[in-house]
Amino acid sequence: MTTPDGAPRRRRISTKRVTLADVARAADVSAQTVSRAMRNHPDISDETRRHVQETVRRIGYVPNLMASNLASNVSRLVATIVPSISTSVFADTVSAASRVLEPAGYQMILGVTEYSSVHEEHLIEKLLGRRPDGILMVGTKHTAAASRMLRAAGVPVVETWGWTKRPVGSLVGYANDDAMHALAQEVLSAGYRNPVFIGSASDGDERARARHAGFTRAMREAFPEREPRFVDTEGRSLTLQSGDEMLTRARERHPDADVAMFATDILACGAVLGAARRGLRIPEDIAITGFGDFELATAMDPALSTVTIRSDRIGTESAEILLAQMRSETTGTQKVDLGYEVVLRGTT
Amino acid sequence: MTTPDGAPRRRRISTKRVTLADVARAADVSAQTVSRAMRNHPDISDETRRHVQETVRRIGYVPNLMASNLASNVSRLVATIVPSISTSVFADTVSAASRVLEPAGYQMILGVTEYSSVHEEHLIEKLLGRRPDGILMVGTKHTAAASRMLRAAGVPVVETWGWTKRPVGSLVGYANDDAMHALAQEVLSAGYRNPVFIGSASDGDERARARHAGFTRAMREAFPEREPRFVDTEGRSLTLQSGDEMLTRARERHPDADVAMFATDILACGAVLGAARRGLRIPEDIAITGFGDFELATAMDPALSTVTIRSDRIGTESAEILLAQMRSETTGTQKVDLGYEVVLRGTT
Repeated sequence: MTTPDGAPRRRRISTKRVTLADVARAADVSAQTVSRAMRNHPDISDETRRHVQETVRRIGYVPNLMASNLASNVSRLVATIVPSISTSVFADTVSAASRVLEPAGYQMILGVTEYSSVHEEHLIEKLLGRRPDGILMVGTKHTAAASRMLRAAGVPVVETWGWTKRPVGSLVGYANDDAMHALAQEVLSAGYRNPVFIGSASDGDERARARHAGFTRAMREAFPEREPRFVDTEGRSLTLQSGDEMLTRARERHPDADVAMFATDILACGAVLGAARRGLRIPEDIAITGFGDFELATAMDPALSTVTIRSDRIGTESAEILLAQMRSETTGTQKVDLGYEVVLRGTT
Repeated sequence: MTTPDGAPRRRRISTKRVTLADVARAADVSAQTVSRAMRNHPDISDETRRHVQETVRRIGYVPNLMASNLASNVSRLVATIVPSISTSVFADTVSAASRVLEPAGYQMILGVTEYSSVHEEHLIEKLLGRRPDGILMVGTKHTAAASRMLRAAGVPVVETWGWTKRPVGSLVGYANDDAMHALAQEVLSAGYRNPVFIGSASDGDERARARHAGFTRAMREAFPEREPRFVDTEGRSLTLQSGDEMLTRARERHPDADVAMFATDILACGAVLGAARRGLRIPEDIAITGFGDFELATAMDPALSTVTIRSDRIGTESAEILLAQMRSETTGTQKVDLGYEVVLRGTT
């Protein structure tokens, strides 16, 4: 739809940027005086400085930070690379990091990989070309070329949302496989015997794969003679509707499944809400578990059994480590394991 | 929690950045040859070019874009200013815009206002200092100083998620007051007589205030003698839990209310889910409406009556307008009204 009068309205705009010379003209002083007044040069009187500042504000002039950043070799940019921001869980991490970095004078420059490691490599190259002072990223698995570029960048890097023995720089996360292993053990202890795992086996979602590995380990320990059951989401987007569809598919393939263990809360919540609409009883007809502990997990009835991950604390701690290193208060890298918590609620 | 062995682990890192000189050394050619090979200079043989490119890749060198950007007066940055990204609805807009801008070689630099126009002014100044080639922002109401800076920046600006007669540049949105007015009219036509509006009256959330105005207009038209009812969320964060709490509060203040009209889906969905947990019947005990049509709105049972806004299309259209203007294919600004759609479902 367009505006009431038909086609999109267009009007011509002047694209002329207001410059320092415009400030000088409007303030009736020299360009040098403007420049000095803005740098608080001692030769400039308080009165002139105030006059220049008022003029700057009145005509909306903003000085160019790029030139001084280039000269000082400091960009005050933090490159932030996430698989997705529509999935609220990474948005919480980015949001929390932004609340630490912005007041400290750093801006985040955003890259979204859409869960592809090839695209991640591409983004890393583009973002490093901006000479960020620090790099914050979701994930610990990268292409070889991406890892080389990250190491060669010579700036602090924090990887998050996973666990690895050999991080590029610092690490703020938890072990996805251990967390899902712990949840599976709890579910088995509660008496379930035929769990099915539902998640992505795709290259770009290392978290889903690690959770699958944790599930498989728990199942092999409990039932060494049986093949652990897995239903692949096959590149479906992470939505409530996908969760509903995947529960139906998993029940068709494994009619005797007594618990559907999803790789992420968004799918699990979709399955619970879909089950309610279909008149399926949770957990009597089938139990459901998630991963992440989104707000929706506790808002639903029954509430979701899941693993709690502190997505906001991942952002806060990562940003604080980056800040400290960017300010050179510390030269060491850090590994911070924020852990996880298994919470069993009404869906099991 | 920290790593198993106690305190956070630290190790020393080298923060030395790999430079063009390092590439020259590793490739055993001159720095000038590296530089020329990377610019595809005709004096460089294909063999040398390949050798240099392989070395660049092997040691992870990334050329500095800042210097060439500064020289060309093009930053290939789009400043993106949003009230919040944890609220999925703006994340969808940012995500959609990123899918248009990234392949075209533009990166988004993110500012989050946390619903404060003073903070927005501050962010605009900081982001304009980066000399973005374009500006994409949620909202059409700014401080006077912020508007002056946006106009003086001399680059394309797109405001979104609202409607105004005097946009700074282009506008991609819809009229929040008309949309809520239309929803209120539909609700009144369905026979409800005692609606209460629940939303924010805060300065930084112009969308909630415009929706409140639309509700008030519809109520005054229908019941000129009555004061339209309003319950203020008083700065509560936009969460499912806040929605549950606000429904309880609204029913205490207005026990005869027959429909609770929320300014946003997230609050309305929280109210519906909370009502189910409390054994309240929707819509028999009280009807509920939202605004936005989040995925959760249709996933719940009963599904939410609401207004559909195309948050992803806002991102796509805005990014396309910016791209066209940044590439100078068009010099005109545009106003694109994406409209809205009232959808009545099970909660009314």
